[in-house]
Amino acid sequence: MLSRRSFLKKGFTGLWSTVPLLSHFHMKKVQNRKSTMVLRWQPYTLELKHQFTIAVSSRKTTPIVLTEIEYDGVVGYGEASLPPYLGETQESVGAFLSKVNLSQYTSPFELEHILSTIDKLAPGNTAAKASIDIALHDLVGKLLNRPLYQVWGFSNAPLPPTSFTIGIDTPRVVREKTEEAHAYPLLKVKLGRESDKEMIETIRSVTGKPITADVNQGWNDKYYALDMIHWLHDRGVILIEQPLPKDRIDDLAWLYERSPIPIIGDEGIQRLTDVPNAVGVYHGINIKLMKCTGLREAQRMLFVARALGLKVMIGCMTETSCAISAAAHLTPLADWADLDGALLISNDAFDGVKIHNGTIIFSENPGIGVIKKI
Amino acid sequence: MLSRRSFLKKGFTGLWSTVPLLSHFHMKKVQNRKSTMVLRWQPYTLELKHQFTIAVSSRKTTPIVLTEIEYDGVVGYGEASLPPYLGETQESVGAFLSKVNLSQYTSPFELEHILSTIDKLAPGNTAAKASIDIALHDLVGKLLNRPLYQVWGFSNAPLPPTSFTIGIDTPRVVREKTEEAHAYPLLKVKLGRESDKEMIETIRSVTGKPITADVNQGWNDKYYALDMIHWLHDRGVILIEQPLPKDRIDDLAWLYERSPIPIIGDEGIQRLTDVPNAVGVYHGINIKLMKCTGLREAQRMLFVARALGLKVMIGCMTETSCAISAAAHLTPLADWADLDGALLISNDAFDGVKIHNGTIIFSENPGIGVIKKI
Repeated sequence: MLSRRSFLKKGFTGLWSTVPLLSHFHMKKVQNRKSTMVLRWQPYTLELKHQFTIAVSSRKTTPIVLTEIEYDGVVGYGEASLPPYLGETQESVGAFLSKVNLSQYTSPFELEHILSTIDKLAPGNTAAKASIDIALHDLVGKLLNRPLYQVWGFSNAPLPPTSFTIGIDTPRVVREKTEEAHAYPLLKVKLGRESDKEMIETIRSVTGKPITADVNQGWNDKYYALDMIHWLHDRGVILIEQPLPKDRIDDLAWLYERSPIPIIGDEGIQRLTDVPNAVGVYHGINIKLMKCTGLREAQRMLFVARALGLKVMIGCMTETSCAISAAAHLTPLADWADLDGALLISNDAFDGVKIHNGTIIFSENPGIGVIKKI
Repeated sequence: MLSRRSFLKKGFTGLWSTVPLLSHFHMKKVQNRKSTMVLRWQPYTLELKHQFTIAVSSRKTTPIVLTEIEYDGVVGYGEASLPPYLGETQESVGAFLSKVNLSQYTSPFELEHILSTIDKLAPGNTAAKASIDIALHDLVGKLLNRPLYQVWGFSNAPLPPTSFTIGIDTPRVVREKTEEAHAYPLLKVKLGRESDKEMIETIRSVTGKPITADVNQGWNDKYYALDMIHWLHDRGVILIEQPLPKDRIDDLAWLYERSPIPIIGDEGIQRLTDVPNAVGVYHGINIKLMKCTGLREAQRMLFVARALGLKVMIGCMTETSCAISAAAHLTPLADWADLDGALLISNDAFDGVKIHNGTIIFSENPGIGVIKKI
């Protein structure tokens, strides 16, 4: 049996030296017998094609952590995406993953036991937790030698179209981005600034296709919000995400009663326990793997939301095709998909689900269906 | 390609002649190429070990229909249990199954598409629908060559103990049945008659172990019900199922506010859409495959119930180890199991989950884990 130190050394000088981008791949657990899971992770930086501006921040890169869980020679891939305003960092993910001991579990198929135990290791750390959940789902699908969509009982019938996001920018760039998005039947705009009406009018100078609007808590006054929603509705905006700060429950309920289009909770609805609280406050919820610890909890949120009459949007952060492909597995039962995260980056680390004319198509590869490119 | 007629002939004189109990096994679809699903079914009569009396009826047998779905040489087993007071019969199940055309689906893995389409064929027919759902889940697990509990992410860790039912009977028989049930840590009694207190006192003359009580809508007055619940609570009864008729929502809500022990909705909560209506009326729900069309919907009911703070019991009708083994897959996330249906019959058609000292243990066979014995 190799010691941890000698394995790490072997890992860096041998196995990983052929993969130059994996500059410091951490090894968590020595694979000391056939049936032990090994967790590895690697920081990575996503390069955005465009400066990305939303109501609360603006940036050109997104830090992520890529995970791998190996069992019996089979590797499952996962990912934690870490937009700076959400609080998790590559360091916090590394610290959390260091606490995870996968060698205590007999089988990767014990998802319920493994994921519920990991969830209790520390509060928060939802993206770190999702990076394990995604890798385990990928691993289990690969061990079954089936695409996860089949294991979950879905077909490869057409999925809902995914929206394509236009960030806040100058009219010239907004026009350019809108033209670039000609293949997408649904656009998403980031609102919540002085320039909101200008954004919409700029897009409408190029196309009449439906738009979803994400305010990211950027408005403060409920009357202003309602006026804006009517104005947007008149211009073909079909839903509004998080128009007011998430803690303004009474104001959100007031808007909910009056809005001519669905109001979707995003920042206000993080995990499964939040879903019942959406009733009477939002018309629907945005489920994102990085908020809710991954696919297993996300699927339950979807069932609960639907049973409570809530609309469901499946969203994402800036992510590689790894997390995007995982999230796609929630879309067969969703109303809207907003899974353009991998389309907005120039250095995607994976091939996975394809988006053809704005419509998601599952990969036929086993597991979540991704091939690592780096 | 065989015609339907010649295949039936071949089936009866060849394949099935070695299985004498399968007296008239209906063939739905000729297996005319490798990748087509074939649905077969067979009426069967369960013989109860004891005359079974509940508040609303008394009987010695239960009619059921056994189903098989064959694909690529692999057979999945299912079952519809048809207690007479629930309205479905062997004839109605046969008529419903005759309408099901499995040849239109590419793959048995398309559970969502197949089961949602079948659900829309006709209202009701929930046991008939469950017989297809169970067979498909068994088939998919076998095609994956994995026990379904693993495909669903559970481990073979100990499951909740299952209660053992003592039917309404004379004190002598009740005493005998209670003694027979010595291995079960939890008893279930059927109440709702004049003899309720006598039943409990008879059991308490034999054992002090916890009891669950099922009234099957047998009480009519809410004040009487509350008095009885207090009396039962004082004698170690830990929950009450359906104390009042299911349509007496206001009275049930009144009881819910006052009961010292959980009140569980059974007849009042049939399917997924009923679950949110349990809030404020019941403390929990009893999920049964035969009420809710099968495992796929049952799993969603479980998630929704838990998210709404409702307790969950997994129940059954008189069933073979086929439907019982399927239902066991819901127990890892449930509070109580009441899956003694196969223990009460003398002609079980399957080996499946084992119940050891009242605790359910998953079978390690693929699919729902059953072996057909007849």
